[in-house]
Amino acid sequence: MGKRVAVVLAGCGVFDGSEIHEASAVLVHLSRCEANVKMFAPNVEQMHVVDHLKGAPTEEKRNVLVESARLARGEIQDLSQLDVKELDAIIFPGGFGVAKNLCTWAVQGKDCSVNEQVKAALQAFHGEGKPIGLCCISPVLAAKVFPGCEVTVGHEEDDRAPDVPGTAGAITQLGCKHFCKNVDETHVDEKNKIVTTCAFMCKAPLHEIFDGIGAMVRDVLKLA
Amino acid sequence: MGKRVAVVLAGCGVFDGSEIHEASAVLVHLSRCEANVKMFAPNVEQMHVVDHLKGAPTEEKRNVLVESARLARGEIQDLSQLDVKELDAIIFPGGFGVAKNLCTWAVQGKDCSVNEQVKAALQAFHGEGKPIGLCCISPVLAAKVFPGCEVTVGHEEDDRAPDVPGTAGAITQLGCKHFCKNVDETHVDEKNKIVTTCAFMCKAPLHEIFDGIGAMVRDVLKLA
Repeated sequence: MGKRVAVVLAGCGVFDGSEIHEASAVLVHLSRCEANVKMFAPNVEQMHVVDHLKGAPTEEKRNVLVESARLARGEIQDLSQLDVKELDAIIFPGGFGVAKNLCTWAVQGKDCSVNEQVKAALQAFHGEGKPIGLCCISPVLAAKVFPGCEVTVGHEEDDRAPDVPGTAGAITQLGCKHFCKNVDETHVDEKNKIVTTCAFMCKAPLHEIFDGIGAMVRDVLKLA
Repeated sequence: MGKRVAVVLAGCGVFDGSEIHEASAVLVHLSRCEANVKMFAPNVEQMHVVDHLKGAPTEEKRNVLVESARLARGEIQDLSQLDVKELDAIIFPGGFGVAKNLCTWAVQGKDCSVNEQVKAALQAFHGEGKPIGLCCISPVLAAKVFPGCEVTVGHEEDDRAPDVPGTAGAITQLGCKHFCKNVDETHVDEKNKIVTTCAFMCKAPLHEIFDGIGAMVRDVLKLA
């Protein structure tokens, strides 16, 4: 029987939701590994809606669960319904939506708060010794919830990660250990069963990001 | 130098836009083949907006180009800017948005009209002997614009293609030849340089759809 994996989304679109290609890559690799996937998102309003053509916020209101359903082709549940006992692992694709809708990192950095359901899900998997996979900016969730854990968001002080300067530094300030990794590599925190890869935090061709996410998915399943 | 490939989007989400995983798969495979990609979408209002959680239309208004920019991470142009001379091939991912926003197939079937810019783009590539790749429901664009051409949308009269009953029949009524193909196969109309694959028109695991789209992308590039 395939591993049962929760994928938690944060909307649909890099600037205000889940990064679409990261989320799709996670699902393609989980499919190839014959995992049974359940998708979830919090039923909350997005921090804001960004016009992705202009790169600027609009006056619109959108709901994280409803927009995430676009990525899930309708097959998605309210994150409040997640039951760790029915699942073997949990994965969070990246995108600014993680830092805006799943926690407040985008505005508060290391002093952010994490959505209560997201925090509870992370603690539940961690508490049961079930693995957690995160990519791009999502590792900040682990850094905030599990002080002392090990993660990567790519390279420190490097123009390959221009979008979120200082992320690695802020993670270190939270008492975590940051490991510099390339786009095709993961970091596995064996003790905490946390697997991270930098994905779009690195400037790399899309297929390399896709492959790096594949490595993360396989490392998560190995630990499950 | 890599082939220069236009990817034309129809929004962002299977029920009212481009199918997200098909569009992402096209881009991953083009990246691996070192193609230079330019993305385009028509600057028009969506036929409607579907709440993908409920599967029902809403009262919202959204613009095809603006929503497509989510898939393109902002790097997209108005389809009116497409210049066939700067490009070697053109690819249309599927999704209901193709049948709703790029043509009116969703409501009129074989009697549909095709968006004038979409039609002009198809005719321009065809006229210059440059290949056209289409997947899922997108082959109906070729069937409507190039009577007599050869395409696949998967299997006729088969519950693996439950969403669009009669699509293959309607294509035949337009004077085209429909070929039954599996999700991992393409059909190549050598004369017209039209490459098609069924993608989500078949019920198949996501990684098989991903691989079938890879075959389509490679066949398009071979003809370019």
